[in-house]
Amino acid sequence: MASKKEGSIRHGGDLGEACRLFPQAPEPWIDLSTGINPIPYPWPALEASAFTRLPAKSDLASLEAAAARAYGAAPDHVVAAPGTQALIDLVPRLRPPGRVAVVGPTYAEHAASWTRAGHAVVAAADLSTEADVVVVVNPNNPDGRVVPARDLAAAAAGLAARGGWLVVDEAFADLEPVESLCGAPPPGCLVLRSFGKTYGLAGLRLGFAVAGEPLIGTVRRGIGPWAVSGPAIAIGRRALADGAWRREAAVARGRDAARLDALLEAAGGRVVGGTTLFRTADFADGPGLFARLGRAGIFVRRFEAAPARLRFGLPAGEAAWARLAEALGA
Amino acid sequence: MASKKEGSIRHGGDLGEACRLFPQAPEPWIDLSTGINPIPYPWPALEASAFTRLPAKSDLASLEAAAARAYGAAPDHVVAAPGTQALIDLVPRLRPPGRVAVVGPTYAEHAASWTRAGHAVVAAADLSTEADVVVVVNPNNPDGRVVPARDLAAAAAGLAARGGWLVVDEAFADLEPVESLCGAPPPGCLVLRSFGKTYGLAGLRLGFAVAGEPLIGTVRRGIGPWAVSGPAIAIGRRALADGAWRREAAVARGRDAARLDALLEAAGGRVVGGTTLFRTADFADGPGLFARLGRAGIFVRRFEAAPARLRFGLPAGEAAWARLAEALGA
Repeated sequence: MASKKEGSIRHGGDLGEACRLFPQAPEPWIDLSTGINPIPYPWPALEASAFTRLPAKSDLASLEAAAARAYGAAPDHVVAAPGTQALIDLVPRLRPPGRVAVVGPTYAEHAASWTRAGHAVVAAADLSTEADVVVVVNPNNPDGRVVPARDLAAAAAGLAARGGWLVVDEAFADLEPVESLCGAPPPGCLVLRSFGKTYGLAGLRLGFAVAGEPLIGTVRRGIGPWAVSGPAIAIGRRALADGAWRREAAVARGRDAARLDALLEAAGGRVVGGTTLFRTADFADGPGLFARLGRAGIFVRRFEAAPARLRFGLPAGEAAWARLAEALGA
Repeated sequence: MASKKEGSIRHGGDLGEACRLFPQAPEPWIDLSTGINPIPYPWPALEASAFTRLPAKSDLASLEAAAARAYGAAPDHVVAAPGTQALIDLVPRLRPPGRVAVVGPTYAEHAASWTRAGHAVVAAADLSTEADVVVVVNPNNPDGRVVPARDLAAAAAGLAARGGWLVVDEAFADLEPVESLCGAPPPGCLVLRSFGKTYGLAGLRLGFAVAGEPLIGTVRRGIGPWAVSGPAIAIGRRALADGAWRREAAVARGRDAARLDALLEAAGGRVVGGTTLFRTADFADGPGLFARLGRAGIFVRRFEAAPARLRFGLPAGEAAWARLAEALGA
């Protein structure tokens, strides 16, 4: 649940909030508040059975096999879920309450979900912690910081030795040159992958957990049967098998990211990082710029704990780029 | 997870199992193994944003409002989920392990899910039990038994007095003249409603929990944000608002149910009950009939604990009715 206090916005992607904050803004809104690819995968027309039939186990297995190939994982190490958020909600309920360290600042839902499930959550600056569970977003959201795979493996080994888990949220790893843990997840290490962000299909609700046994079996039992919809299975397995599209998207959106950095710097921003799908910058007057953009119908992501900081998703086309440049005064 | 032992099938709806059991059966299969309406709601074409955008809170709220009107519930008593099964998996994890009574025989996933979450589960013949949680499917699957609302309210009061819950699965209540608890759920009572069965859209994955506070808040936090897909929201809110379609479906499928009863009785079956969307009958040689139907490409539901018993969904059109009549030798 998004916090309502002081008009704060914990999540991007809800234009209803933007409309309430800036009722006079010109329509249509340009929503740059998410890290969702604005150029979606050209999804195929769906057969009626995707809507009418209960998804068969074989359909789900073919989706998970396509995900395994895309992520370089073993097929039996992959479990599909109705969005990564469903996994973020589930995983804390799969072990008794304990001490959880979330390496941050990062995406707020991790700490919120472990807290909801009764765990004692602390923010950690790095992996050196005595907690039972450590959560790392890699690359990190919003600053793009990358933790090397060898450091993660070492942390996982320490945690596994005391029955702990390392949760590595690779939600933004698809289009980056980062070393994924999906190929050989260490014992006690659970990797999360997002479908909707890379493929621009966030409405489908599709994400994946990757881990070795016994952890992946625990997650599979927790997710239960028929969690993923027929449309998500049909579109997901096609898109995940399309390596050419993914490679072209990485190049094209990489060019967009560089163009966005240049725009933000020309507007006086100091780009602190990000990923191919979003860029994060500090400004002398972050709240002022957030409001200026909002009045111009451009919704970006702000952070309660870092008022100077704003996060920008990628504009979807030349008209959006032009409106952003004008509103930034760049 | 479906049990694999002894070729048993705990769930209907997976034709992959049917093909493995009867590899020589003529295609296409007639799948009567579920209680899903074979005449689906005529779903509208979807806007691109249903796939591309993260569902907004206001979209979800309008879906839940439509469900509330359809079920006669207060809007803030309704939470949408990606299928009733997701709720069956979630609810047992929302309270500490205790004693759970499942009134049965009934749909097997309730006992399985409470057991997975660490509860001690017993089968109960009726509501008189000392358990912390009682689960009732109403009308029951597969025999259609209906527990009167006043008995459920009395049981809920007893359970609430000791901090317990009554879970009433009204998955098959939409098309029946049963008295729902959705209008005024007693304290500690959680009602489950299924969308996919009534509307013939099981692939969408959509179901609802209905309860008063504080229970509904617990469920809402457990489900988390963005659990329901854009296609499910768009189609679900349209279909749930269409009372005329639902009334016509109840009449037309009721005629089908009566026709099916006559066919089963002509084939020597003794109809023990069911709902508008499925009929259950006992046969002198249930396993033999299951195999005969399977070899004819007709997949029905059988029950490990009651070999004489078979459950039949409704055929989808005259060709399917004719194939069923021929295979039954009726």
